[in-house]
Amino acid sequence: MKIAIMGFGIVGSGAYEAAKLADGIEIKKILDLRVRPGYEDIADKFTSDINDIISDEEIELVVETMGGVDVPREYVTKCLKAGKHVVTSNKNLVSACYQELNEAAAEGNAKLRFTPAAGGGIPWLFNLRRAKRCDVLTEVRGIVNGTCNYILDSMHKSGANFEDALAEAQKLGYAEKDPTSDIEGTDTLRKCVISTNLAFDANVTEDQIPACGISSISAEDIQFFNSNGYTCKLMMYSKVMDGKLSAYVEPAIFGPQHLEANVKANNNLITLVGENVGTLSFFGQGAGSAPTGQSVIQDVIDIKDGVEMNAPFHDYFPAAETSFIANESQLHTYYFRHDHPSRMITEITDKFAVVDGTYYCISKPIPVVEMHELAKHMKQVERPFFFAHIHE
Amino acid sequence: MKIAIMGFGIVGSGAYEAAKLADGIEIKKILDLRVRPGYEDIADKFTSDINDIISDEEIELVVETMGGVDVPREYVTKCLKAGKHVVTSNKNLVSACYQELNEAAAEGNAKLRFTPAAGGGIPWLFNLRRAKRCDVLTEVRGIVNGTCNYILDSMHKSGANFEDALAEAQKLGYAEKDPTSDIEGTDTLRKCVISTNLAFDANVTEDQIPACGISSISAEDIQFFNSNGYTCKLMMYSKVMDGKLSAYVEPAIFGPQHLEANVKANNNLITLVGENVGTLSFFGQGAGSAPTGQSVIQDVIDIKDGVEMNAPFHDYFPAAETSFIANESQLHTYYFRHDHPSRMITEITDKFAVVDGTYYCISKPIPVVEMHELAKHMKQVERPFFFAHIHE
Repeated sequence: MKIAIMGFGIVGSGAYEAAKLADGIEIKKILDLRVRPGYEDIADKFTSDINDIISDEEIELVVETMGGVDVPREYVTKCLKAGKHVVTSNKNLVSACYQELNEAAAEGNAKLRFTPAAGGGIPWLFNLRRAKRCDVLTEVRGIVNGTCNYILDSMHKSGANFEDALAEAQKLGYAEKDPTSDIEGTDTLRKCVISTNLAFDANVTEDQIPACGISSISAEDIQFFNSNGYTCKLMMYSKVMDGKLSAYVEPAIFGPQHLEANVKANNNLITLVGENVGTLSFFGQGAGSAPTGQSVIQDVIDIKDGVEMNAPFHDYFPAAETSFIANESQLHTYYFRHDHPSRMITEITDKFAVVDGTYYCISKPIPVVEMHELAKHMKQVERPFFFAHIHE
Repeated sequence: MKIAIMGFGIVGSGAYEAAKLADGIEIKKILDLRVRPGYEDIADKFTSDINDIISDEEIELVVETMGGVDVPREYVTKCLKAGKHVVTSNKNLVSACYQELNEAAAEGNAKLRFTPAAGGGIPWLFNLRRAKRCDVLTEVRGIVNGTCNYILDSMHKSGANFEDALAEAQKLGYAEKDPTSDIEGTDTLRKCVISTNLAFDANVTEDQIPACGISSISAEDIQFFNSNGYTCKLMMYSKVMDGKLSAYVEPAIFGPQHLEANVKANNNLITLVGENVGTLSFFGQGAGSAPTGQSVIQDVIDIKDGVEMNAPFHDYFPAAETSFIANESQLHTYYFRHDHPSRMITEITDKFAVVDGTYYCISKPIPVVEMHELAKHMKQVERPFFFAHIHE
């Protein structure tokens, strides 16, 4: 099968290298502004004009590894409508334009796959759909952001504060110069949207799912967790209970009996729960050139070989109607820290300790939405605040 | 697709239930000596004559969930030669007769799948072959025996001795009446044989792989591990280094930085390492009716839908020549306990402590084969001895 790669950066070049190990895949064209250093010998494959790819009838499949939303949205839609299959690693695109991309795929009778868009090198989305072939899924959850996991793990180990741990992660290449989308939970939110839609044949959008990141965590929070045997992780959660779908992104703390507690460095751990299979978890590299690149090529091979994964899998087609999120039915006990008890705070507090004017609290069981609203309010009024769901 | 199930016990009935959730699978016949209680409404499907299945041309695929070797070997070979695809959960059979079954499958132009034979409900073998499509695997390892993991976990938690922990596991149904094959490492050995052959296109047999179980572990060993922050697991290891294949089954101890340290109860955790994907681990239920039953049906669906998983996957066909195991090149540091220093023991000891006449030792780095030979010798002379590889 002749294919093209759009965007020859970290993931695109990883896909190019992985394709060398696969049977029957020829990379005919590469869309990028310039030839990537080290790839001068294939300079003739490079083009900066999308029409060179669209108009090439030999190219049956296009890999999109550009990043961003606007340009890939236009290019991917064009490719799909022209009947070219698309494999994309672009979580921003898939999360933001899920319905639209699926409609374009249907229009062009083309296939759309995006296993690398959540979990990087982990065959998470592929196995998630595969599990549904003879099981009923009830829950997905996981650590899906390597940057946050690296920062939290290093804070647990060194006792550093958030700013220093972030700076070190940036120095080592585990965090970007602008880390906002990672540390504020937006990246995790996108992977939550994608996983939720595939797991539950839903069609939820980013604005429906409350998401909190880790940027307000302090060395004192971590110290409190360490001394109580807990480990803090940024989690995505999505669950169907009594026919209602809930989904949210928030920090959570895990006792030593949980596998999540032992996920170190920049690794990911993603879990599905099925009525038959029980709890099934996948651990590995959630990012990086070679891991994510091979995941791209796995999707390409599946399309080439016609691996359909049975009825609900097909082309990852979403449920026709928008799904509703019912987080009010999800009650959790939360750890939270603040410096100024208001009536709203006092009402939800079960236990607390005060050290140097800072309140370390355990909440009564409260709905997810209530805690997220409180956190949003505290951010607006610029008061110190951090919370984490105590994972049972 | 019309299929038959041979052996309607724990796994066979789990497969029957999982098939209800799958599209396009009809279970036409069930081979068993009697109708299973609760299944009287499908009594007409039951037969005790294998020829009712072989001679039924509508039956395209046969599931084998009988257990044992001799009878399923005869039946499975017959089915394959008659051109019926086979899915089996029987690790004893696949480990013992790998070459023979593959030859029968080739003769009948039938497919043979056995994902449930290692990892139970975990899609381990499937993903292992899938990973090879665009990666080079260098290692597989894992906790693949739930019984041993349950016993070890309960010893770590309660401080119980081995015999009491085993008796409790038997009471709760996590260990069989005759637990020999689990606790002596034979079950893990079989899963090691199967995983090694699929990972490295090898054709190794059970007698080539040294295997030690956990039956000689003591409460004092566990106490020593606990106080040093280590957790003991029974592991399979298989690795290719410098073109040489090594494989062995032995107890190992893990520091808290390893995911294995946090695998509780009767769960499994199985890992592959690939040059592209890096470390990829799968966690879940390694046994049980519903988990293993759905894994059987996943293989059935793949055969029905023609999921081939590319060149090396095909029908799991083994390398033509027997592979050789080179464990002498694998050096490890071991923990070991004995009560009587001989010259052989003194030579390999690096550090030791003596408590009440018992020697708790750390070895110099020594080849795997040397430690296994020592353990074998100590068993023959009936002296107390236990060892565990210190996993780096």
